[in-house]
Amino acid sequence: MTVRDEDIALAQALADAAGAAIRPHFRSGFAVEQKGDRSPVTVADRAAEAAMRAILAARVPTDGIIGEEYGREREEAARLWVLDPIDGTRSFVAGRAIFGALIALIEDGVPVLGVIDQPIAGERWLGAVGRPTTLNGAPVRCRPCAALGDAHLATTGPSYFGAEGWAAYGRASAAARDLLWGGDCYNYALLASGHLDLVIEEGLKLYDFAALVPVVEGAGGRMVDWRGAPLGLASEGRVIAASDARLIDPAIAALG
Amino acid sequence: MTVRDEDIALAQALADAAGAAIRPHFRSGFAVEQKGDRSPVTVADRAAEAAMRAILAARVPTDGIIGEEYGREREEAARLWVLDPIDGTRSFVAGRAIFGALIALIEDGVPVLGVIDQPIAGERWLGAVGRPTTLNGAPVRCRPCAALGDAHLATTGPSYFGAEGWAAYGRASAAARDLLWGGDCYNYALLASGHLDLVIEEGLKLYDFAALVPVVEGAGGRMVDWRGAPLGLASEGRVIAASDARLIDPAIAALG
Repeated sequence: MTVRDEDIALAQALADAAGAAIRPHFRSGFAVEQKGDRSPVTVADRAAEAAMRAILAARVPTDGIIGEEYGREREEAARLWVLDPIDGTRSFVAGRAIFGALIALIEDGVPVLGVIDQPIAGERWLGAVGRPTTLNGAPVRCRPCAALGDAHLATTGPSYFGAEGWAAYGRASAAARDLLWGGDCYNYALLASGHLDLVIEEGLKLYDFAALVPVVEGAGGRMVDWRGAPLGLASEGRVIAASDARLIDPAIAALG
Repeated sequence: MTVRDEDIALAQALADAAGAAIRPHFRSGFAVEQKGDRSPVTVADRAAEAAMRAILAARVPTDGIIGEEYGREREEAARLWVLDPIDGTRSFVAGRAIFGALIALIEDGVPVLGVIDQPIAGERWLGAVGRPTTLNGAPVRCRPCAALGDAHLATTGPSYFGAEGWAAYGRASAAARDLLWGGDCYNYALLASGHLDLVIEEGLKLYDFAALVPVVEGAGGRMVDWRGAPLGLASEGRVIAASDARLIDPAIAALG
């Protein structure tokens, strides 16, 4: 299949709207609330998701929506828009421009279109089945990496893992060449651009990973869960992104 | 004391030179070597430090220099320039614009002038004894935070701690409001700008922390070691930066 031009244009319009809602708040004085899972949320997260939902309601009123801040609508629809207005809210709150607005289109359970938009730096990665992933319109490509011992591995941080997952991550990271901390969705974008080899995380929600899959895979990388299965609606949030498919089996083996 | 205008101008010239040496390499294809301590180094680190040393040799030939990549010269001098051309080389290597060139002037053992320069985003924090800390020339200020339980706490990552230090960090982080990972020097700059409350790290070298002290303290914050002592030439690299001096005692108590 190939993603339709009008869906790509719609995803771009959603990212434009999210960025316009987020930028005025960056490094401004806003309150930070804690949600039930202790994750932070701000006026910028809510304004960006509301702006995107308004566009979807006007343009594709029968499509479903799953968003981090405002929940699910028509989730049984064949076409589902999955929104995380600010992935990396903690970086946003601290004034670091390495968060992203995430937009995915899932068709029949498969993520077919993804946007990772960094509205402060003005960087937009767009991946879609049947097309090469682009950064601001220019194609990007993952770099080759044949062995786990050569891999630059990133993860957001220990506080995102449970005890068992953290021990597994420790085994994988001991086998990698070098480790990077922090970064959320931005690490996957940089992997698609050829600057990182491997990202391993636990506890991601659908809205955290759905947009990443087309971006990474359209750049020649692979994304799977910790058992090697493709990521989809039912995935449990244990995620591996590899710049090179040859890293997947050794990463799974190292995770144990 | 007040730092002399010509030393501020010299620090700005050093930061300009470092940025000019670094920018062409950002997200380009360069080799990453590992040093003896397994930390990475690139052509950009070396070019930036060499460019700064050439300026110091021409303008202040009797001052001492301590640099991350090219070592020590005249370290017994009363005035010492301390250089870390890229603090956060792992972020630089991954294409994240949250690293910094660090420049400090130490006089009689005390860091009196510090620059944290982010050459991709075009952000320069400058702190000097007797002057308010600035970001690109505009004064910045730490925010108040009276209690550890209200503090947004950052550290670069678990791989920078020893086992004992990591356990201590775990006690402190359990008492904080929220945790941020990754970031190196950039977290201290954001603390000086009022976006973070606390940074706690272990294993920092003189060239990692010397520039941070005038930046943080000139913005109204406090920097000490884990025993509450001021940071200087003999410090062991266990560092606390607080936006509000009221956080220091509870942080030290929590570290145990």
